[in-house]
Amino acid sequence: MADLSTCRPLTRASVVEAHELIRPFVHRTPVLTNCTIDEFASTPRTAKELEGTPWELAENTVERPAQPKLRLWFKCENLQRIGAFKARGAFYAIERLKQEPGWAAGGGFSKGVVTHSSGNHAQALALAARTAGMPAHIVMPQISAAPKVAATRGYGANVVFSGSTAPERLAVADKVMAETGARMVPPYDHPDIILGQGTAGLELQEQVVEAKDAGVAATGTKGAQPTAFLRAPTSVPPSTPNPGLDAIMAPCGGGGLLAGTVLSAQGTGIRVFGAEPSLDGADDCTRGLAQGKRIETVSSLTIADGLRTPVGVHNWAVLTGKTPKSQGQGVHGLYAVGEDQIRAALRLLLERMKLVVEPSSAVPLAVALYNEEFRRRVEKEAGPEGWDLGIVLSGGNVSLESFGTLFPS
Amino acid sequence: MADLSTCRPLTRASVVEAHELIRPFVHRTPVLTNCTIDEFASTPRTAKELEGTPWELAENTVERPAQPKLRLWFKCENLQRIGAFKARGAFYAIERLKQEPGWAAGGGFSKGVVTHSSGNHAQALALAARTAGMPAHIVMPQISAAPKVAATRGYGANVVFSGSTAPERLAVADKVMAETGARMVPPYDHPDIILGQGTAGLELQEQVVEAKDAGVAATGTKGAQPTAFLRAPTSVPPSTPNPGLDAIMAPCGGGGLLAGTVLSAQGTGIRVFGAEPSLDGADDCTRGLAQGKRIETVSSLTIADGLRTPVGVHNWAVLTGKTPKSQGQGVHGLYAVGEDQIRAALRLLLERMKLVVEPSSAVPLAVALYNEEFRRRVEKEAGPEGWDLGIVLSGGNVSLESFGTLFPS
Repeated sequence: MADLSTCRPLTRASVVEAHELIRPFVHRTPVLTNCTIDEFASTPRTAKELEGTPWELAENTVERPAQPKLRLWFKCENLQRIGAFKARGAFYAIERLKQEPGWAAGGGFSKGVVTHSSGNHAQALALAARTAGMPAHIVMPQISAAPKVAATRGYGANVVFSGSTAPERLAVADKVMAETGARMVPPYDHPDIILGQGTAGLELQEQVVEAKDAGVAATGTKGAQPTAFLRAPTSVPPSTPNPGLDAIMAPCGGGGLLAGTVLSAQGTGIRVFGAEPSLDGADDCTRGLAQGKRIETVSSLTIADGLRTPVGVHNWAVLTGKTPKSQGQGVHGLYAVGEDQIRAALRLLLERMKLVVEPSSAVPLAVALYNEEFRRRVEKEAGPEGWDLGIVLSGGNVSLESFGTLFPS
Repeated sequence: MADLSTCRPLTRASVVEAHELIRPFVHRTPVLTNCTIDEFASTPRTAKELEGTPWELAENTVERPAQPKLRLWFKCENLQRIGAFKARGAFYAIERLKQEPGWAAGGGFSKGVVTHSSGNHAQALALAARTAGMPAHIVMPQISAAPKVAATRGYGANVVFSGSTAPERLAVADKVMAETGARMVPPYDHPDIILGQGTAGLELQEQVVEAKDAGVAATGTKGAQPTAFLRAPTSVPPSTPNPGLDAIMAPCGGGGLLAGTVLSAQGTGIRVFGAEPSLDGADDCTRGLAQGKRIETVSSLTIADGLRTPVGVHNWAVLTGKTPKSQGQGVHGLYAVGEDQIRAALRLLLERMKLVVEPSSAVPLAVALYNEEFRRRVEKEAGPEGWDLGIVLSGGNVSLESFGTLFPS
């Protein structure tokens, strides 16, 4: 990892720079929309749908379910290289390392990089390192699923096994660093990783503007509508004051993607929200913001397994607007949902959008559809105009074998 | 259904006309590519991969597996309205009906349409009829899965139950016609349906040319690459003699999509191939072509459940080049694959392309990857240049609950 002192400042301009740097290596993933899901999002939940959730209506209440109007734009990072947004941060980290004065001369290319991860970051770093022509040492728990080990080796990485606890994994990573001189590239808690992940939000903002422009320009002409999902041109008023998104929601695990998204929207007027699972306290960031203090440990078995991690230190600073150039502007809100809501949103993404996504990717949509606090906020802040809400589908690496458990027949 | 005598001739020009007519109602679905799958398709199968297939190598043989070079372009009709290409034929049939002299004056709009189907055609016709403001009566076997019935009703159709055999279903459909005056719109065996389905092939041809043009033009510029999957510009020689596809492969059940694809390629020099499952004789069209005679019944439980149907009469005429204006040009070949090959191709589409497709959609890819006869033909006809092969992913309507059976843990 590039030394902290050499990192670019945590600003939108640095995300733009990061984007220039990694553009040759990552996909500009498509942005899709879906009328059926928009309609469902813009329909009030029924009393029955809210039963058993924290927003269950009391009997004989005069309260009514929220009535937000939402147009959703899905940024398909499940279609990114290695199947998740993590490719962005990994490629950027490697590119920054290559630029570090003295790193190459000190044998950096033969020493390579190391990380501890059994998930998407492992594959992302393996691919980025191989592309740059350097070794990647990936520390994985001995109990990792065989396909994950195979996938990481498939990208040419050297897999080193460890025990399952965090200290055991870190100890093995330290040993690898001592023996090989490899640099650590952590999965989320580093400015370079945050800046790299932020490029997804940047592209999403650009693509929605492009899509609206194309929609307006394309009335009656052929070919200009790039995907099946773009809303019909007539639904985009030509003189709309906001040409793009009103808000973006991203899932929050370690917080690399969410913090990067916050930076990507700095100064644009676009609100950024985070989405978490609530099971077993996996909503650490939601709770931490309420308490004004980062929560440091999480132990949850939520199906959104990419979001079982507590928010990192650098990530927390960005989310709370505590970085030097943030001018106090952090994330606009965090919202959590239960397992049933995540599963219902996952079903819609699979059945209606025909996209394979991992459960973590379904959490923001679950918030938009089911979290009444969020929905009341949209109703109140957006009024009858509603919001164009970008949703980051973070990844699609889910084993087909797990579907039998997720959706039993 | 429009009267046969009023149907447009079965030619490419009629497919182009059909496309103009249905353009406001259907999605121009995206065309995606995938480097990993291209590489796998362009790698010879190993002796082990061929074990247990009809192309198993004999011990000590001097024969070697085929070495084709393939660049695949996937036309994502799983992202079409109602989740399958069937929307195309249904919308075209309805539009043609509206144009039939005397139909509207005779109360056509209040009499509506009828069909017998429990699958994608039922939903497609229901949507097309609702859009045109006329009733749709859908005859479904009493034993149909509840979600299919619900989905069809969800599009506003009147579901009428029948027994499960073909004669029972037709008898109920006849009764509905007698009682309501509704017109029959059959699922595949009609010129209008064939012409409507052909529009998918037409778009695919256009989109590949556009993508190659954009790829060449986009070197180093931003935004011009519409999807994540377009091959890097450098792999497209600017002066390539063939600007688009060399061939298209579509699945073959009743033959509406395949026959339409044949028409869409008429006179373009693009070869069209059909793909079938081989289980229990579901390869009726492959066998029929070999025997020079249409096979009229099929009874197969292949997982590719959209392809359990024998080829229709009009479809057969197109596929065998026996229509008045075909000049003898029909389909260039039919190829079949087993259940294991279909399941392996389905896995790649789900895991690598992150697309939800129904098993029938995986059959053409299975042929391209595993059918050694087809692969030898590509090697021989294309040489080291290889082929740009379009593959129609026909639909994505699969129940999530079936994944547990398809991919047991």
